[in-house]
Formats: sequence, C-alpha cells, structure tokens
Amino acid sequence: MTNVVKLTEVSLRDGSHAVSHQFTAEEVGSVVRALDEAGMHYIEVSHGDGLGGSTLQYGKSLVDEMKLIERAVAEAQSSKIAVLLIPGIGTVHELKQAHELGAKLVRVATHVTEADVSAQHIAKAKELGMESLGFLMMAHSAPVEKLVEQAKLMESYGAEAVYITDSAGALLPEQVRERVRALRQALTCEVGFHAHNNLSLAVANTLIAIEEGATRIDSSVCGLGAGAGNTQTEVLTAVLDLMGQNPGIDVYKMMDLAESVVTPIMKRPQLVDKGSLALGYSGVYSSFLIHSERAAKRFGLDPRDILVELGKRKVVGGQEDMILDVASELAKMK
Amino acid sequence: MTNVVKLTEVSLRDGSHAVSHQFTAEEVGSVVRALDEAGMHYIEVSHGDGLGGSTLQYGKSLVDEMKLIERAVAEAQSSKIAVLLIPGIGTVHELKQAHELGAKLVRVATHVTEADVSAQHIAKAKELGMESLGFLMMAHSAPVEKLVEQAKLMESYGAEAVYITDSAGALLPEQVRERVRALRQALTCEVGFHAHNNLSLAVANTLIAIEEGATRIDSSVCGLGAGAGNTQTEVLTAVLDLMGQNPGIDVYKMMDLAESVVTPIMKRPQLVDKGSLALGYSGVYSSFLIHSERAAKRFGLDPRDILVELGKRKVVGGQEDMILDVASELAKMK
Repeated sequence: MTNVVKLTEVSLRDGSHAVSHQFTAEEVGSVVRALDEAGMHYIEVSHGDGLGGSTLQYGKSLVDEMKLIERAVAEAQSSKIAVLLIPGIGTVHELKQAHELGAKLVRVATHVTEADVSAQHIAKAKELGMESLGFLMMAHSAPVEKLVEQAKLMESYGAEAVYITDSAGALLPEQVRERVRALRQALTCEVGFHAHNNLSLAVANTLIAIEEGATRIDSSVCGLGAGAGNTQTEVLTAVLDLMGQNPGIDVYKMMDLAESVVTPIMKRPQLVDKGSLALGYSGVYSSFLIHSERAAKRFGLDPRDILVELGKRKVVGGQEDMILDVASELAKMK
Repeated sequence: MTNVVKLTEVSLRDGSHAVSHQFTAEEVGSVVRALDEAGMHYIEVSHGDGLGGSTLQYGKSLVDEMKLIERAVAEAQSSKIAVLLIPGIGTVHELKQAHELGAKLVRVATHVTEADVSAQHIAKAKELGMESLGFLMMAHSAPVEKLVEQAKLMESYGAEAVYITDSAGALLPEQVRERVRALRQALTCEVGFHAHNNLSLAVANTLIAIEEGATRIDSSVCGLGAGAGNTQTEVLTAVLDLMGQNPGIDVYKMMDLAESVVTPIMKRPQLVDKGSLALGYSGVYSSFLIHSERAAKRFGLDPRDILVELGKRKVVGGQEDMILDVASELAKMK
C-alpha cells in the first residue's frame, strides 16, 4: 500500500534563484493558474531564500514577495499556496503577513544540524492555523543518526512533516533510501523529500523516497531551481502515472504548461553543467562556486579541489570566508 | 565484487542524430583526442543509424563516416574505436572497410525481436578479429522472456556481449533491474546497457544495470544523442567515482571536455522537453514524433494519444504508415 503523495511545486521559490529573483506578478499568476488547472497540490511562492530574502546579501526581488503571494492566492482555485521561511532571514512578522494573504502552509528551513532554531516558527505557524513543516537542508552532510535526531526535534516542535532536503544534489540513491527509511522508523509525522539534479539523479532519488514512504514531495516544472535544478515536475508525474501511482495530476496539462508557460520565463535551460556537477560531486552549496573559482585562479588551483575539500569540512552557508583558508592550505601542499 | 565496467562513448554516433549528421572531421578529431586523454575505453563513430546510414531516408552525413572513423583512429592513443551496424542498413562491405581503417569493435544492432538478422554480421566481425557485440534495440517493448530468447540467439552467433538498448528511454528502474538480472542468469557472455534520458532516469538506470552486473555501459558526453539524449558521461563517471567504482576515467578531464570540446559543437542543449518526454512516456521511437504531430493536427487529436496507442501496439521503426490508421481509429472513437 502506497500512501498518497502530496506534491509541492517549487519553481516559484527555488526557481527564484535561477531567474535572479526577477519574477513578475504576471509570471507568477500564469504559472499558478496553469499548475492549479493541472491539479498541483501545493505551490510554494517566496524569495529563493524564503520570506524576507529580498536583501542586498541574498538578492533583491523585482516584485515584493507579498504581492506575488497575493497574486498566487488569487489565481489558485484548488492548489494551496505555500511559503518557505529560514529563521534568521524571515521572521514571524512576514509569516503572519503571508498567512493573512492566504498562504496555507509553511516549510521552516534550517541547516541539517540546526533544527533547534525552527521551534518558534513551527509553533507560530500552527497557532495561526497553517500547516507547519520542517525542512532540513544539506541533508547529505550529516550522518543518518544526526539527521534523525534533528528531525525528531522538528517533530517535537509540532512539524507535521520533516523534509530531507538535498540542497547540493549530492545524495546517491542508496543514501536517499537509508535516510527516508530511518526517518520513517523514527518519526510519526510525515517524511518529505526535496531533490536537486546535480548528479542527474533527482527523479530517480524521488522515486526511491516515495518507495520508502515519503509522502511530501517537491518538484519543479522544467526543473527550474538553483544549481542543476530540481526534480522535473512534468517528468516525475509522467513516471508516477506509468507506475500506476499518479497522485491526481493531469499529466498532459503538466507537460503542456512546461512548454508554454514555464519555458518562456526561464533565463537558461536547466542543465547538469560543469559548475553544477562540481557542486553535486563535492557536496557543497551553490553559493560557494563562484568564490572557489576566484580563489582557485589566485592560488593556481583547480576550483574542484577547493570544493571537494570544503565538502569534506562540511561547510555551511555563511562560511564562504573559509574558501581562502582552504585554498591557501591546498596551495602549500602542492 | 563488482566486475570492471567498460564504457563506450556514443556522442559521435548517437549524437549524430542530434546534429543532423553534420559532424566534421575536426570535431570528431577533437572529441576523440580529449576522450582518449580522459581514459575513455571505447569511442563509437558511425552515422546515427550505423554504418551505411548516410542516405536520403536516414539523413545524409556531411562527411563520409569512413573519413570520420579514419580520423578517430588516428587521434586515439588508448581508446578503441567502435562502430555500429544495423543489418539492412549497413553491410559486410562497410564492416570490412571500418575494420581496415582500424575499428576494433562492432555492435550489431537489431530490433529486440529480430536478433536472427544479426547472425552473419556478428560472425563476420569475429572472423575479422574484431570484438563483436549484439545490441537489442527498443528493449522495453518485449517481455523479459522474449528479450532473453533473443539475447541467447545473439550469444549463439558469437556475440561477446549483448546490450539491453532502451532506445525510447522508456524503461523504469525496476524494469532495468529485472532485464539485466534475467540476461545475467541466462547468458555466459557479458551484458551491456544503453540508456536514453527521456524519463530523466538514464544515470540512475545505468547505476542499476551496473549493480546487477552489466559490464558494458554506454554514455555520451553532455548526453549528446537522439531524443532526450543518453546517460551523461561526465555525470556517470563522477557518480561512479563517488561510489568508489571509477573504471579508470579522469573525472576532471571528462568534466572539462564536456564544457570545452563537446558543448561548442552541440546545436541545442539536451533536455527532457515536451516531445522527448512524450516519447519516453509512450515508449515510441523518436522517428514517430513528427508524423504523429502532423496526424494529430489533421484528425483533431492530441499527438500523445496517438503515441500512447502506437506504444501499446509495439510499433517498430519503419511502421510509420501505421500512424494514420491509428489516428483515424482514435478520431472515430472520440
């Protein structure tokens, strides 16, 4: 017996990175309308770095995300609008605002070892009557026991599901299986999975997550998302349909909107190119790529050697200043 | 214990479709030189439809494939040059010519139910002292028992390996597992696997094939190939490296040549777009796509309904005249 999977479309949030946060209200409106007609369950609309992400540090949004959320809510007949919140970037203030505009679900996202900072926001969302979920980013970088421990924390705060978030697209199929299985055994709440395609494994890893009992699944039409992009929605739903596990999606409509609605708003096709492959190979978050390339030039190194070393040290977003230290050490060892 | 995998790079043969058979000798030379330096085992060079494919029906090559093979042989220090031959398109004459120019391996390709037409060519190649392999195309369209029966025929003709060729990119992971496992049990010769990425499963399916004991693996740099393209070589080798199963490839060089040597000769990026997804979803070969789109327009149908019906009827390349019959029947049922 397979539990019915609930899909969350992330192109209007993770894809914000891929378009440098330049979504217009018209684009968001047309994507939401088409996804709603195709039967998508949840549609996430936020800055790429979540509510409140529109800053000089993370990239300014062209249009205030609250206006985008408002537009999305207005266009959706059946789909529910979701938001992402990273504590430290977004605050309770923005959460309330999104809720008042009609957002029904929030994913509270932390680094895989920092679940404790999600307590307040998970609780607050529940108090507001929203679905409140946890989202453990860079899940590949922690041992399975640590992931389980952190997921249990999120569950204890009230999360109705906890996501394994493969932010760098670095998880191998058996690593996905092991992690979903461990969380399913340890938690009573639902388990979710969010993939990136840096190793060209996003669809396959998602199928394994579903096989192991994950019921909250993220995907993105045309893969539109950071790095090599996410699990491609129209492909995943076609495959689930072939497997007799279609969770209520109109597969033809999903294929059609990929071509006619999403492709025209993309800046570039979503490929596994040299940069995104290097990130998946090293298990490092995309914000490290450009700085590693610069440091490599300065120290006469291959940027991939820097990324691989950073991956071994399990760097966290915000630790970009470690790049020069690592590059300098590697240069001395040459 | 994993057997050591031997990789065959197919961008200069399957990728011939993607560039409308317009490869120049310089392009072939630069790709072969770079692949050779990265440690690729075999490099296939032929018209997309195999030796002798340069015709009005299959598409004329810009440069005579024998000149391309000659150039490839001249550039390769360690890599062996391979050719593809489809009996009925290519003949013993071209096989001899390729052998004289230095091709060391041939894959004799037939539809999955027509292995018997490969007997003469498999035997001839062995007589010439070439490695002689069988290649069962559209392998998804036959029941496993039929696949086994046909593979055993090829083995009986002297094939040193038989490939499961997922020409439409339609096989699901468990279907790959079942098929490789069945061939491994039934054959004493090696088993090979050739994937297409129409369902975004090429890399994952290839990993499963290897796990089940396939030792001859096809891939293509940047995925350059028909439909949604093949298993992306630089991604597959990076993943095998992460799994501790690198079969002797310089992973950085492979990533580099993808960007600097292959990307510049591509006409378009290799994506899972609406057309290629429809082919994977229906399990129909790419030559049916454009005709189905035309018939759909004429009969007021969705081309995917025609493709799905053609898939159910297990059409074979050459049966494109069935498209109008199917379209007319579907239109009557509306």
